[in-house]
Amino acid sequence: MGVAIVAAAIRPLAHADRERVREIIVATDTFTASEVATAMELIDEWLAASEASDYLTYVLDDPDNGGVRGYVCFGPTPLTDSTYDLYWIAVDPAVQGRGYGRQLTQFAEGEVRRRGGRTLLIETSSLDKYAPTVHFYESSNYSLVARIPNFYREGDDKLIYAKDLAK
Amino acid sequence: MGVAIVAAAIRPLAHADRERVREIIVATDTFTASEVATAMELIDEWLAASEASDYLTYVLDDPDNGGVRGYVCFGPTPLTDSTYDLYWIAVDPAVQGRGYGRQLTQFAEGEVRRRGGRTLLIETSSLDKYAPTVHFYESSNYSLVARIPNFYREGDDKLIYAKDLAK
Repeated sequence: MGVAIVAAAIRPLAHADRERVREIIVATDTFTASEVATAMELIDEWLAASEASDYLTYVLDDPDNGGVRGYVCFGPTPLTDSTYDLYWIAVDPAVQGRGYGRQLTQFAEGEVRRRGGRTLLIETSSLDKYAPTVHFYESSNYSLVARIPNFYREGDDKLIYAKDLAK
Repeated sequence: MGVAIVAAAIRPLAHADRERVREIIVATDTFTASEVATAMELIDEWLAASEASDYLTYVLDDPDNGGVRGYVCFGPTPLTDSTYDLYWIAVDPAVQGRGYGRQLTQFAEGEVRRRGGRTLLIETSSLDKYAPTVHFYESSNYSLVARIPNFYREGDDKLIYAKDLAK
């Protein structure tokens, strides 16, 4: 007897996923209340305008393992030729370490490439609590291209990571 | 007989200024059609919501010298504590070199300080045609804090300049 390995599916976020994704974002305990509100605004733009929005939003759905477990939101960076931003990514903390984050990131990279994107940018904070995030980006071959001192607040820099998807 | 020196006044952009400002933005010959459209979108957000918008927009009005000759648009950077972005600044090319750009920049810096802002960011491009812009920011004590390679398109980096307004 073999064991069937079924990878979690990634599909466009639908209205029915909205509350579950909000719970996941809150459960990560990484985002402030205003950040959660901003993440939900982008989701609502996607739900309102779908592909016509600049916030392409997908969920990772593992039907045999609790359903929706994470999501990713990315889109073309305004006024650029072929640069995209990965705006938001979150995985249910109850199932972190299973590669869901990497699966979501690689999915976004593939979609950006398919849409003609060449560079994918991710912004994060220099605070200690984001160290695992930074480690994740670095191990996914993102390079630190910019640091803006005291961006979020005094002592909290913005870090910008980039990946050249043409390589 | 003395000569009365009357500095140009800076006042909130009103509906009646909209077309004149669009002409100035186009006349600079610095912005692409999509950039002009984006600049106008921010102006329309300001006209719709005034101080409740995130795009505070002012014109430089020199009544003895042709009226509106430039404008500036700035606002609080989302999800930050006390960082502001200077989104747009333009001066009628027919009257450049009279210090209007500096007057607009200093006005924006003062307003940002008054509203509790500590850092003002300005983004620009690495293309040669922006060299005068870069020179202007550097001479206004902005420091280059980040460069994102190939951001706008291949060979066209994004440069981010910052000024610490607390100093």
